[in-house]
Amino acid sequence: MSKLIYLDNNATTKIDEKVLEAMMPYFKEEYANPSSMYDFSIKPAHAIKEARRKLKDFLGAKNEKEIIFTSCGSESANTAIRGYLSTVKNKKHIITTKVEHPCVLNVYKYLEKNGYKVDYIGVNSNGELDLTELENAITPDTALVSVMFANNETGILNPIKKISEIIKNKNPETKFYVDAVQAAGKVPINVEDLGIDMLGISGHKFHAPKGVGVLYVNSKTMISPLIIGGHQERGKRAGTENVPYIVGIGKAAELAADNLEYENTEIARLRDKLEKGIVQKVYNARINTGLATRVPNTTNIGFEYIEGELILLHLSDLGICASSGSACTSGSLEPSHVLRAMNVPFTSLHGSVRFSLSRFTTEAEIDYVLDKLPAAIEEIRKISPYQKELQALKEMKTANV
Amino acid sequence: MSKLIYLDNNATTKIDEKVLEAMMPYFKEEYANPSSMYDFSIKPAHAIKEARRKLKDFLGAKNEKEIIFTSCGSESANTAIRGYLSTVKNKKHIITTKVEHPCVLNVYKYLEKNGYKVDYIGVNSNGELDLTELENAITPDTALVSVMFANNETGILNPIKKISEIIKNKNPETKFYVDAVQAAGKVPINVEDLGIDMLGISGHKFHAPKGVGVLYVNSKTMISPLIIGGHQERGKRAGTENVPYIVGIGKAAELAADNLEYENTEIARLRDKLEKGIVQKVYNARINTGLATRVPNTTNIGFEYIEGELILLHLSDLGICASSGSACTSGSLEPSHVLRAMNVPFTSLHGSVRFSLSRFTTEAEIDYVLDKLPAAIEEIRKISPYQKELQALKEMKTANV
Repeated sequence: MSKLIYLDNNATTKIDEKVLEAMMPYFKEEYANPSSMYDFSIKPAHAIKEARRKLKDFLGAKNEKEIIFTSCGSESANTAIRGYLSTVKNKKHIITTKVEHPCVLNVYKYLEKNGYKVDYIGVNSNGELDLTELENAITPDTALVSVMFANNETGILNPIKKISEIIKNKNPETKFYVDAVQAAGKVPINVEDLGIDMLGISGHKFHAPKGVGVLYVNSKTMISPLIIGGHQERGKRAGTENVPYIVGIGKAAELAADNLEYENTEIARLRDKLEKGIVQKVYNARINTGLATRVPNTTNIGFEYIEGELILLHLSDLGICASSGSACTSGSLEPSHVLRAMNVPFTSLHGSVRFSLSRFTTEAEIDYVLDKLPAAIEEIRKISPYQKELQALKEMKTANV
Repeated sequence: MSKLIYLDNNATTKIDEKVLEAMMPYFKEEYANPSSMYDFSIKPAHAIKEARRKLKDFLGAKNEKEIIFTSCGSESANTAIRGYLSTVKNKKHIITTKVEHPCVLNVYKYLEKNGYKVDYIGVNSNGELDLTELENAITPDTALVSVMFANNETGILNPIKKISEIIKNKNPETKFYVDAVQAAGKVPINVEDLGIDMLGISGHKFHAPKGVGVLYVNSKTMISPLIIGGHQERGKRAGTENVPYIVGIGKAAELAADNLEYENTEIARLRDKLEKGIVQKVYNARINTGLATRVPNTTNIGFEYIEGELILLHLSDLGICASSGSACTSGSLEPSHVLRAMNVPFTSLHGSVRFSLSRFTTEAEIDYVLDKLPAAIEEIRKISPYQKELQALKEMKTANV
């Protein structure tokens, strides 16, 4: 198999051919500025309207006016968080979690330097949020609670509806921002049912291109724009509309909705096969997230007493793409803040690898990984300084079988 | 001629086929996240590096590290202006012009509401900036001077080097931001020679897609990021890199440099033919910008005593795309703030139309406009309430011939 085995779909995904196909006319003939006055701009303006409707449906929003197109997930988060806070300047308290995406955490670190008090809620060893800690943290001064829908490293799903109820019971004025970048296309999202005030997603995580995101802001929540300028996106986001990508994310949302069942049956089955197979075949492997509820495509496996970066390099040589931590912090040798918050034992903290599948992942690819990975790990174990510990682990596992 | 005659290239341009071709592999096979660890990410990461080098060359920057990729011209402007100001919080004075793009002006209106004093420098009847007024406005407290390179409505070029000298002589600490969105691809830009500290451009104005921009920030100027998050763009702009568009704007910059001579000879000739032809054939037409130095592709023509929106609708029916004002403010019936700043007489203020050509404009298209426009204007003149004035104008013009 000389083909690439791409199991890093939480970092980015391949664009669906149907998405690219939908975009092409707007790269070629239909290039008008959608804000222009002439007939030539009608089609692109209409295409944006259509995409907005598709995103409204995808997220379960009430109104198309609640959908704002952005250039990425980070822009969605910055716009929601800072855009909302700037409308309630007297409230200086924010609650978020220890396991948010590093990009979102950086926004809160910035806000801490600018007069905000931020509480970071912890998780248990399965990666599940401490809801009592969350509830106790909410005060009359709490402007915003910000919780990710699904964790990028572990795939752990947070109980969004329950969290929303906790917030609104304690302080109905506190707004709830949900970073749903890793949930979109993997589990159903319905902002109305879930009681979400603002929610951000990123196209390239569900087979749209890199460089387009969406921000949902419900009609009862006011935000000021991050990018100030023209009247685009109802004054919430300036800049000539990126028509092809907006069309693309619309199509991708439609396809993601169509594939949601497949994702939660077939892709979940392949993920389960992969992780069970690895734990069975590799004696120093453990799943980092117990039985907690996860998105169907992600598994995070700790390989004890060896280095994650070395595993990734070996996998790369085998044509297999996987990752440790997030792409946004890769290159750093710091162990993952998510696994540390979960108190993953130090023995596997440095040797943890995330495999994330997509609807384009095939059974043959999973079989290939299960065939090649054990020997690669064996190679790496040979140069580990922890030979005694590995031997003990091997004997323990053999005894358990 | 059933084909579209697109003469609104200052609103947006058609993507060059070579640009689209360069982008395609990054929509298809090369979809890796460029920040990932495996070999699969080497090619996209390298492509970004190549594009950065092309932009460095295109703008005459010293170092690739001075090039930041953004999602649009508005983001470039917001990042430069607000990102720089946040590093010099004690300085609260800004100087800009009355004729900046409305999107940039909106940033200054926002800053005025947030404790800044902004001086708006005026222009003469040709649209030329009052440099004495500019010089006199600079004080020790002036953090930033912000002047557009070329005006979007009139094409008027500002004497950027002279302005930079004025600024640095008066206050060497004052930074100079140049909105070059309408200059890129039309005239040479060399930030080093011109003494520019920060400069913003937008891809879709020179045959790259909508949704990508560049911000140049010289190594002596510190800015904080607008979009906070990951380490991308050396911490100056978070968000997974939009690899295809970054490759696209790189290719577009290369092509624009190659076409600069053609733009300034052939396209200038066609523009001149168009405007001279119109003034000759239409007795109530006047060029709104005397003999001031302009970019080669733009003409702004006032049709006295008739309504601009009506002209645009008639042109649209003929398959001709032109505009009044900027696309970002279209739909508004307010006369252009640029033409008002130039004291264009009220008789043609409401009837002004911008034609903007590109390297894809053909002589046959210009001939078609010169053939069809006079009859369209005649139709509109018939329903003007200013029949007496139009008759007087006609007699005057006939007498002058």
